[in-house]
Amino acid sequence: MTSEIVGALPELRELRVGLAHLFIRHTSASLTLNENASPDVRRDFESWFGAAVPEDFAWTHTLEGPDDMPAHIKASLMGPALSLPIAGGRLALGTWQGVYLCEHRDRGGPRSLLVTLHGER
Amino acid sequence: MTSEIVGALPELRELRVGLAHLFIRHTSASLTLNENASPDVRRDFESWFGAAVPEDFAWTHTLEGPDDMPAHIKASLMGPALSLPIAGGRLALGTWQGVYLCEHRDRGGPRSLLVTLHGER
Amino acid sequence: MTSEIVGALPELRELRVGLAHLFIRHTSASLTLNENASPDVRRDFESWFGAAVPEDFAWTHTLEGPDDMPAHIKASLMGPALSLPIAGGRLALGTWQGVYLCEHRDRGGPRSLLVTLHGER
Repeated sequence: MTSEIVGALPELRELRVGLAHLFIRHTSASLTLNENASPDVRRDFESWFGAAVPEDFAWTHTLEGPDDMPAHIKASLMGPALSLPIAGGRLALGTWQGVYLCEHRDRGGPRSLLVTLHGER
Repeated sequence: MTSEIVGALPELRELRVGLAHLFIRHTSASLTLNENASPDVRRDFESWFGAAVPEDFAWTHTLEGPDDMPAHIKASLMGPALSLPIAGGRLALGTWQGVYLCEHRDRGGPRSLLVTLHGER
Repeated sequence: MTSEIVGALPELRELRVGLAHLFIRHTSASLTLNENASPDVRRDFESWFGAAVPEDFAWTHTLEGPDDMPAHIKASLMGPALSLPIAGGRLALGTWQGVYLCEHRDRGGPRSLLVTLHGER
């Protein structure tokens, strides 16, 4: 979702150097940076995380459904924030890097990000 | 421990917009953001991490006890730092988000955080 | 690799307080902070991550070799960035904390970091 984020941040272009801080305001979704080319990579993320943090475990917090507690663990493994460098008015990502919004619930509803930019013009 | 942190940072109130960088100066404890309501969630974090990074593994670094090496791995899975957005003099967290200080040793002793605030008044 | 990073950043000495943002521009290598004393710790990181994210798994993205998809997962578990506090012209790390560059491929080639410093003189 890198292009969606960049599209919502016209202010990026004014920064010669700086940082963009992306923050997701939820505890069962997360942000990470990974390969932006093959959709297979995203599918493999889903299957590895599903195996590593299974619904079938001795969870005590089960009120919100069997996918809730695995979602909380996955969210902390990935983290709620990404700080990305800005150079010359653009995100200075590597060639293959793209932002993933990781939805860890089966039905997560809308998710909102808060972006904080800082740097020098 | 969100309220403890906020209580120690009266300077927060002066920032209209910015970031609070929380940093733990240890390698066997970590910081994460997760559900701040039910204590069950924290208990389930403990049990999943205990199963995923067990004391009973082919560790070579065992001088400091069987809980030491798992603590180092868990600390890196969670990470030593959190950057949290500030808006209107407050941490701009989601409704359910709270800061966890994750102690990964059986007897960790006191832990210290270093907080760096930056932003605009 | 803390000393290598500090050696490449003479500007650090000019900052009384601030943050150093380290960013790796790759999707199969990562950055973390952990114990800088015993090499056993790094060896144990390697063996635990190898067991937790094995090559022998139902990966679909296998074009780039059996070590590629595990490398992507490990890279996101650790993360591509570290924000480190600066105080008195130095990185304000804990006694035992050092920066690890985690190479998750068998043959990763050269890796480049982009460092962004900000703060007050």
